[in-house]
Amino acid sequence: MSCQKLVGAAVVGQSGGPTAVINATLAGVIRAALSDEAKGTITELYGMRNGIEGFIDGRFVSLSSIFTTPNGTTDEEKLALLTQTPASALGSCRKKLPDPEKDPEFFERLISRFKENNIRYFFYIGGNDSMDTVAKLSRFVTDHEYDMRVIGLPKTIDNDLPGTDHAPGYGSAAKLIAAEVQEIVRDCAVYTVPAVTIVEIMGRDAGWLTAASALPRILGGYAPDLVYLPECDFSMDAFFGDLRSILKMKPNIVVAVSEGVRFADGTYVGESTQSGVKDAFGHKYLAGTAKMLTEAVKAEFGCKVRSIELNLPQRCGAHFASQTDLTEAADAGSAGVKAAVSGETGSMIAILRDETAADYAVIYKPANVQNIANGEQKVPDKFITEEKNNVTDECLRYIAPLIKGEPKLIMNGGIPVHFVFD
Amino acid sequence: MSCQKLVGAAVVGQSGGPTAVINATLAGVIRAALSDEAKGTITELYGMRNGIEGFIDGRFVSLSSIFTTPNGTTDEEKLALLTQTPASALGSCRKKLPDPEKDPEFFERLISRFKENNIRYFFYIGGNDSMDTVAKLSRFVTDHEYDMRVIGLPKTIDNDLPGTDHAPGYGSAAKLIAAEVQEIVRDCAVYTVPAVTIVEIMGRDAGWLTAASALPRILGGYAPDLVYLPECDFSMDAFFGDLRSILKMKPNIVVAVSEGVRFADGTYVGESTQSGVKDAFGHKYLAGTAKMLTEAVKAEFGCKVRSIELNLPQRCGAHFASQTDLTEAADAGSAGVKAAVSGETGSMIAILRDETAADYAVIYKPANVQNIANGEQKVPDKFITEEKNNVTDECLRYIAPLIKGEPKLIMNGGIPVHFVFD
Repeated sequence: MSCQKLVGAAVVGQSGGPTAVINATLAGVIRAALSDEAKGTITELYGMRNGIEGFIDGRFVSLSSIFTTPNGTTDEEKLALLTQTPASALGSCRKKLPDPEKDPEFFERLISRFKENNIRYFFYIGGNDSMDTVAKLSRFVTDHEYDMRVIGLPKTIDNDLPGTDHAPGYGSAAKLIAAEVQEIVRDCAVYTVPAVTIVEIMGRDAGWLTAASALPRILGGYAPDLVYLPECDFSMDAFFGDLRSILKMKPNIVVAVSEGVRFADGTYVGESTQSGVKDAFGHKYLAGTAKMLTEAVKAEFGCKVRSIELNLPQRCGAHFASQTDLTEAADAGSAGVKAAVSGETGSMIAILRDETAADYAVIYKPANVQNIANGEQKVPDKFITEEKNNVTDECLRYIAPLIKGEPKLIMNGGIPVHFVFD
Repeated sequence: MSCQKLVGAAVVGQSGGPTAVINATLAGVIRAALSDEAKGTITELYGMRNGIEGFIDGRFVSLSSIFTTPNGTTDEEKLALLTQTPASALGSCRKKLPDPEKDPEFFERLISRFKENNIRYFFYIGGNDSMDTVAKLSRFVTDHEYDMRVIGLPKTIDNDLPGTDHAPGYGSAAKLIAAEVQEIVRDCAVYTVPAVTIVEIMGRDAGWLTAASALPRILGGYAPDLVYLPECDFSMDAFFGDLRSILKMKPNIVVAVSEGVRFADGTYVGESTQSGVKDAFGHKYLAGTAKMLTEAVKAEFGCKVRSIELNLPQRCGAHFASQTDLTEAADAGSAGVKAAVSGETGSMIAILRDETAADYAVIYKPANVQNIANGEQKVPDKFITEEKNNVTDECLRYIAPLIKGEPKLIMNGGIPVHFVFD
């Protein structure tokens, strides 16, 4: 933390997988960087195209120009469109940076780019891998005495970033999953013949998204009967036992399962039937977890079984985003700019629950990014039932505030309008 | 058509696959049957549980009781909840009725049930198969001189019902597909590496739903690059050629394909790699159309390829329903009741565009159900481009009015509230 005023340009980038609100964070950065408070300190705001990978090749745009009206005010209309656009509007990359101590060449090229444009502020919106970039760059500039403030802004639908209560992107994905799985539960309840529907939800190592499918249970709605997370070993015998118990009570069962569930020996459930099975082109079938379980249940029970993979729509479902998530995403972006202007560096903006508030409220607090970069926040044991086939009400009460509120979307002819950089 | 006043009870049922607005039609029936206009004519309204199959077993409820408040007025609050609930709230069935002329036994049992409860009005909400039920029952009661008015109310996401411009259920599915595919297009545009994403959309014989994915093109949004419908023979060579042309211009391609596309020899694309390929349980892999095309494109181009099956959520996505569709669904239900009370029978309520109106407007008109029962309305040639790899703007202008408008949903804690019969 340095208290000296640092005058220069800023650059912001987006990295890793898309979310419904990653552009809300970008909008928050733009709004704060163009604000009266930052004027005179942040002289210009650039946006990297395709993250650090595009930036190093000289691909970046002037966000100051794009988001300033001819009158000199911030273009709130464009920012509103940007906010409701899913997926990284600036483009993304998945570049894993080398260790700066061992392989400084990439960092030296970066510094040259920074110097060319007098860039003194660096904001990077992303998940675990992106925070690794922030951590490495922050160490490098400190060690090489290039005066720059380096700030990470959290983003991940998986909610697996440590050091923060939750991450922007999760609330909107959780909301869409809760609503769509509830719709699937209703859809599956219309017939009287025994049928099992298996819904596969994203999450290779952390089960936060799958847990969200159970939210309707505490909201007077309709939730899946069984919920399996990757935090617990998956057992086919226990699964069949769970199904058998429920089939005694009702004909329609809906199961939510994380794509990343594994057997006790560590093999993914989704890869277990794939060995040796090849298609006409000689490729292994990548059947997926739900597909594999579908075949297993068909063989065991002989009833109607169906698999549904929620797939990409769950991470970019801006048409049904959470207003809480959108607000926090934007506020985290603005908080990052303010913190950097005040001297903060080497940090990620964490979102923490304000435990002193009567209702749900959050505070934004810089956290040392070196402690975040390679950690992973999983669903804790206390959030999973003893039988390992559902989540607890305590877990759902933790998630519930994050999905609240619906934005007023700008629509055209029945579909949301998106902002796209030319 | 009989002009005599017919006093008695009415029964309404839902049949076939769920949609986002099938309960809006039910709400329209209830509202009209409980209205002052129908009072004294329709003495009571029953609802079949699980369609005609549940009804014949004596499973039905009194909708008059459930939807009347203690004050004696219609319970508009409950009707609002019912309207926004996806999937058949009364339950559904997929019973194919026998030919009444050859096998009258089922119909005789039905008539006994009608007589027991003095049922004189029969409303059935459904698609092609349900209209077959309406047609057969209508013939039977006429031939056996049981005085009952028999009315079909259209419902299908597939939009393949003949005799009507379009069917309730289609507009909402089309809206969600247009919005979600647009989100997928944005999601896939964030990286710079060549990648093909193949989105599989419902529709075994008619391509209306897949056509809807292209809607953003005429709405200033972002549509898939290629669109393949089951109305045209699918050629792998032509498909590869289409991909090759586009890959020359941009790295990210999104393809929308109907689940029902077939090669010129009539085999489904989705079944072509499945012959001989079995999983660990000895079951044939049912890989699906997009999955099969994914493997084919990987083998041919060696680039990143991904498949997404929109699956059930596209037909029960009430969280993003079309207000136009909801309104028309309810109005068709009410129109059915009014027509029946005025003497109409043996008809399906068709929705026709009012060609005299300056803007989009519809009229509800009874059409002879005997001419509808076994027909199928496919996407006409003029709606498909010459290259057979997209739809025309004329096609999109036909669909566009059907997806307009967003309902104000009753929410609880971030998810829509559903109505459920106990």
